[in-house]
Amino acid sequence: MQLERLEHRACFGGWQDVYRHRSHVLDCDTSFAVYLPPVAAQKAVPVLYWLSGLTCTEQNFIAKAGAQRYAAEHGVALVVPDTSPRGEHVPDADNYDLGKGAGFYLNATREPWSRHYRMYDYVVDELPALVEANFPVTDARAVSGHSMGGHGALVIALRNPDRYRSVSAFAPIVAPSQVPWGEKAFTAYLGDDREAWKDYDATELVARATQVPPILIDQGEADEFLRSQLRPELFKAAAEKAGWSPQLAMHAGYDHSYYFVASFIGKHVAHHAQALYAEKL
Amino acid sequence: MQLERLEHRACFGGWQDVYRHRSHVLDCDTSFAVYLPPVAAQKAVPVLYWLSGLTCTEQNFIAKAGAQRYAAEHGVALVVPDTSPRGEHVPDADNYDLGKGAGFYLNATREPWSRHYRMYDYVVDELPALVEANFPVTDARAVSGHSMGGHGALVIALRNPDRYRSVSAFAPIVAPSQVPWGEKAFTAYLGDDREAWKDYDATELVARATQVPPILIDQGEADEFLRSQLRPELFKAAAEKAGWSPQLAMHAGYDHSYYFVASFIGKHVAHHAQALYAEKL
Repeated sequence: MQLERLEHRACFGGWQDVYRHRSHVLDCDTSFAVYLPPVAAQKAVPVLYWLSGLTCTEQNFIAKAGAQRYAAEHGVALVVPDTSPRGEHVPDADNYDLGKGAGFYLNATREPWSRHYRMYDYVVDELPALVEANFPVTDARAVSGHSMGGHGALVIALRNPDRYRSVSAFAPIVAPSQVPWGEKAFTAYLGDDREAWKDYDATELVARATQVPPILIDQGEADEFLRSQLRPELFKAAAEKAGWSPQLAMHAGYDHSYYFVASFIGKHVAHHAQALYAEKL
Repeated sequence: MQLERLEHRACFGGWQDVYRHRSHVLDCDTSFAVYLPPVAAQKAVPVLYWLSGLTCTEQNFIAKAGAQRYAAEHGVALVVPDTSPRGEHVPDADNYDLGKGAGFYLNATREPWSRHYRMYDYVVDELPALVEANFPVTDARAVSGHSMGGHGALVIALRNPDRYRSVSAFAPIVAPSQVPWGEKAFTAYLGDDREAWKDYDATELVARATQVPPILIDQGEADEFLRSQLRPELFKAAAEKAGWSPQLAMHAGYDHSYYFVASFIGKHVAHHAQALYAEKL
């Protein structure tokens, strides 16, 4: 597996890098960002995967969230994939919420999407294998994300509780089967059979989970998508009915932007560091 | 003076806003950003003005530097102007280092620039008057900036030591009369007479200063512009020869990007907060 380094920047005593590689899963070139904290020069560190929202690439989070400061303090690496396959030969749609920039962290089964749109397998399997083979990291993993990426983080952690020590989300799409963004994307990528949607719906998954990593969700009350697309109360109710206790904090005044993410990313990195550095029972 | 609010976002317990207004000095509409820390809801706070580098608008610093966290902690407002006049009727050049995005914080005297390119007067006079009349701030001011904005901060503080309590800069152009960026811009904006350049050259100004606010400069050693355009050693030597003691810290590995600014902005906000909250003698 060839890794091409595109960016290499000192940041809070560590290194903020960006790499490109050929993804076999996505059948295209793709880029991801890696932040290595200062302590990674001496020892392997655990990894927090970050999944971004609609329209983003690997750049938005690393430029805007200010997470490196906290990752440096806690000795955690950050790994940030793109949000979809890319390239001229990759199918797209004329909308911001379908196609490029809108992979929804699933494996598409419908045409024309099924060949390249396989972000679930990329994030769960190919990317961690690549990262763990090429960087000074351990196999202790956590996952977080924003909006569409919060959906991805919750789905991936709920389906793979043995692979992720903790999960968190900012303003996540928690019930894609019940909101316009999810209904549109799932119909295109997965088809009309709503049974097939359940494996990518965090509210469905948590209702039947037998093991759940610690869950932290932060949500702004002035978020313009709160009532139409996000609806965290649906997830909380389903989780509590199933006997789980996700932490959901609502924040007056905050909207859907990276200013919200930046304001609370320190709390999330601390949440993950606690799980990542805990002795496994 | 009419202020139109374009953005209003909760951030670290305070508010990151962007406003547009008609500038009499620049003879065009211009935008600036204001961060008000949480404590500004209770009392007036001092202001740190931030001047950005080539190609930037008021957006870059507020999205990428992560300064709001520190401004919230220290109770300091941040005010960030654009880097030049804007608009279809404003002259421009086909280069990133002249015209729009490259105002160099001076008052141009040559055509076609002299009507609109008056960023010095805008930053020193019109903007503070506007800010102090419309926001919960005191008249305690500090100024900082990056690259071209570091040049602006040093020049403005050295020429107005009674108006600014402290000054700092990241990777500043300290001797524009001696480097290509400065020679090109000053020739266009100020003409061929190098005597006229001295009022906008921090290395010239510090040599004849009779009063100097506390100066902090950080510089990355892997900065691609260090030897050709920045040359902080020229400023340090001139300042020390004149009996001043600027703090200049060099940082191995760091480049010219906002990852460098983000890594050390906390130190700069603390430097300014100390001066801004000191009792005036």
